[in-house]
Amino acid sequence: MGVPTIQLGPGGPVFSRVVFGAMRWGSWGHRLSAKDMERLIAQSIALGITTFDHADIYGGYTTEAAFGKALHLQPSLRHDMQLVTKCGIKMPAEQRPGYRLKSYDTSRAHIIASAERSLSNLHTDYLDLLLIHRPSPLLHPDEVAAAFRHLQEAGKVRHFGVSNFTPSQFELLHSRFPLVTNQIEASALHLPPFHDGTIDQALRLGLPPMAWSPLGGGALFQAVPEEREQRLLSTLQPMAKRLSIGIDQLLIAWLLHHPAQILPVLGTARIERAAAAAEACKVKLSDEDWFEIWQAAAGQEVP
Amino acid sequence: MGVPTIQLGPGGPVFSRVVFGAMRWGSWGHRLSAKDMERLIAQSIALGITTFDHADIYGGYTTEAAFGKALHLQPSLRHDMQLVTKCGIKMPAEQRPGYRLKSYDTSRAHIIASAERSLSNLHTDYLDLLLIHRPSPLLHPDEVAAAFRHLQEAGKVRHFGVSNFTPSQFELLHSRFPLVTNQIEASALHLPPFHDGTIDQALRLGLPPMAWSPLGGGALFQAVPEEREQRLLSTLQPMAKRLSIGIDQLLIAWLLHHPAQILPVLGTARIERAAAAAEACKVKLSDEDWFEIWQAAAGQEVP
Amino acid sequence: MGVPTIQLGPGGPVFSRVVFGAMRWGSWGHRLSAKDMERLIAQSIALGITTFDHADIYGGYTTEAAFGKALHLQPSLRHDMQLVTKCGIKMPAEQRPGYRLKSYDTSRAHIIASAERSLSNLHTDYLDLLLIHRPSPLLHPDEVAAAFRHLQEAGKVRHFGVSNFTPSQFELLHSRFPLVTNQIEASALHLPPFHDGTIDQALRLGLPPMAWSPLGGGALFQAVPEEREQRLLSTLQPMAKRLSIGIDQLLIAWLLHHPAQILPVLGTARIERAAAAAEACKVKLSDEDWFEIWQAAAGQEVP
Repeated sequence: MGVPTIQLGPGGPVFSRVVFGAMRWGSWGHRLSAKDMERLIAQSIALGITTFDHADIYGGYTTEAAFGKALHLQPSLRHDMQLVTKCGIKMPAEQRPGYRLKSYDTSRAHIIASAERSLSNLHTDYLDLLLIHRPSPLLHPDEVAAAFRHLQEAGKVRHFGVSNFTPSQFELLHSRFPLVTNQIEASALHLPPFHDGTIDQALRLGLPPMAWSPLGGGALFQAVPEEREQRLLSTLQPMAKRLSIGIDQLLIAWLLHHPAQILPVLGTARIERAAAAAEACKVKLSDEDWFEIWQAAAGQEVP
Repeated sequence: MGVPTIQLGPGGPVFSRVVFGAMRWGSWGHRLSAKDMERLIAQSIALGITTFDHADIYGGYTTEAAFGKALHLQPSLRHDMQLVTKCGIKMPAEQRPGYRLKSYDTSRAHIIASAERSLSNLHTDYLDLLLIHRPSPLLHPDEVAAAFRHLQEAGKVRHFGVSNFTPSQFELLHSRFPLVTNQIEASALHLPPFHDGTIDQALRLGLPPMAWSPLGGGALFQAVPEEREQRLLSTLQPMAKRLSIGIDQLLIAWLLHHPAQILPVLGTARIERAAAAAEACKVKLSDEDWFEIWQAAAGQEVP
Repeated sequence: MGVPTIQLGPGGPVFSRVVFGAMRWGSWGHRLSAKDMERLIAQSIALGITTFDHADIYGGYTTEAAFGKALHLQPSLRHDMQLVTKCGIKMPAEQRPGYRLKSYDTSRAHIIASAERSLSNLHTDYLDLLLIHRPSPLLHPDEVAAAFRHLQEAGKVRHFGVSNFTPSQFELLHSRFPLVTNQIEASALHLPPFHDGTIDQALRLGLPPMAWSPLGGGALFQAVPEEREQRLLSTLQPMAKRLSIGIDQLLIAWLLHHPAQILPVLGTARIERAAAAAEACKVKLSDEDWFEIWQAAAGQEVP
């Protein structure tokens, strides 16, 4: 298997370097059956992609449970995987008729209740990692820390982190409870974390970030790409050809090349795409290759 | 009385949760007589609003002295109040013929002289809190710290803080002298401190910020409000009606709901407005109410 | 001699307060002969400007060696000077046919090799200060720290710093190795470092920054200056006249007046310009003068 493991900081969880995101497995995408999910999970684990990323809200609060049914069909899979999920967003949905607008809740009670529901949905008795999904402007760090401590002491959640936090928001919560990661948007199509302090903080603290949308969404794969995407493609295509890989693999390799030890979170539900990403772990880019992509993405050479 | 007290960090001063700003009491606004001010102070204290916020420059360097005359009429009021003032701005004014342009002075000598003049103006022998009014690009942290130490050791000023500082400017001065607050502009009409790190820093250090312009200036109360204000009003008006309060009270309650324990600084000189703000301390918003106002202010739902 | 010395932090190198930048001495500018450079160096040292600033890339990787030839003509000059150089940029140039695009390399191997080449080029056996020229998005702090430690232990480089780093980038590398300065662009024509946290950080850590382009490039000296430059000139010209100095001296004095103890790095190759800058060390500005220039640069009075 080509996918190495990585520990998220000293004392942090050990994950597969490439993470499988389940956002599109259910009703927000491929609507896989429990049987299909069971197969996909098993194939992914066989590839060495053993970490699965969820959020309570995926599929309008339904995808965790769909995944849980697959685990119920084959409970032994749990021993070979790590489960990540998120909480803190309240999103109007059929399953949550009480929510009248999208808002955040990072109270102790909500975090604990949400994590417990995730356990039940996922048919598991512990989570490897629980993330606060978005930085709430009402976040009280002591409330969150109290919830995390409760869940950790109860053995229900082993590690904790955040998602989409700025450095200052991360520093605030990290001052009360040791976080192991910040799951952020990062790719050759989304460079801000590389110069806004987010990646600097991750390197300083020795905490590998997770990267969602590692291929930059579908922007590169449109029938008629925009100008920036055209420019990127004109760099990516010959380089991918030279390396005998796909553009998707090149984008994954670009993230993996970074010293912050970024963990790409795949947004697909297709095993071929996951297998391609697993293969990308073997690609060796040069720094100059990396900067050539950076330059194409930024639209200008480095200063 | 409905106005609770709050301590600004461990060892910090104990203030009323709502603060009365004196900026418009004198020649920059209502031009109250000493007798009127005496009455306003007494009424405010009776409401539980016991903290009064000044700056040397208010009224073109005249409002402290006008307030001091009121205190002179009724010296016992001093025991029931906390006095805040600010220094560091040099503003051309009739009272300061030597200043040829608006500039800052955060030298040791200027801070000490300014504080001593404030004591004399206010007819008091100590200040509860002295703030550097604006972050000077020429600020030397050791100079400021030396001035603060001198004033504290002389018993002239009990606590020190800043106003309008960025997190990095706050961190700089706080590294040399323990500050107790950052008085900033914050309201539903001014959201930047909620995501630029200012409020994060206050929460991390456990130092409640003071908020000037808590109603967002007069923008909501124009005859023909702008687009953003229209949008906010269409959320505020029905919510205020449901809660049986005024829009001004809802805006104050919105600030009070935040976990950073923000102290609104009232910009009025009318006791009815202050009484309404005092009443707002009893309002209980839900998090969802709070986010509904946030969404109306931001013009979009949270991500 | 009018140029004082300054130590860059406790344990840091002792430099002349005004630094002579060699960027334009060679093929990127005046193309001075070795003999001319020898004379210029000696005259500069006689003025008290004893610190010389290089980068490996200046002159397309040729200016260090041109300067080194001058030192070779008169080796005793080395004892009276401090040498600064930079590394980390890979720039396509006749001397580097292997580089296909501008990129950065902050690997341990590259830093060490670059510093060793600079020693050889400059005909010296040690550097007083080595800077990472630009913040690479691929910078690995432990790699850089390992290179710095190696060079320091070998006696090849005495002190280390960076150039053009944001506060967060500086904090990252400083967490692994003690840096003594950040060489940044700063002048009355480039104010961002005064409010983006860069200067705050330098003051907090007690590390004087070096300032490149202290006169703001040539923008003030165009035949037809732009609007901002016109506005600045209308403030600078009468003030310079009043102080009986040149505009260039006023701009240098403006930087020297700042409490962060900024070291201007001169971009000239003419001894008269350097002598004028040396004289500027004697100019005493008032804070109000300083703010008048700030106001003209910002286009508005301070808040």
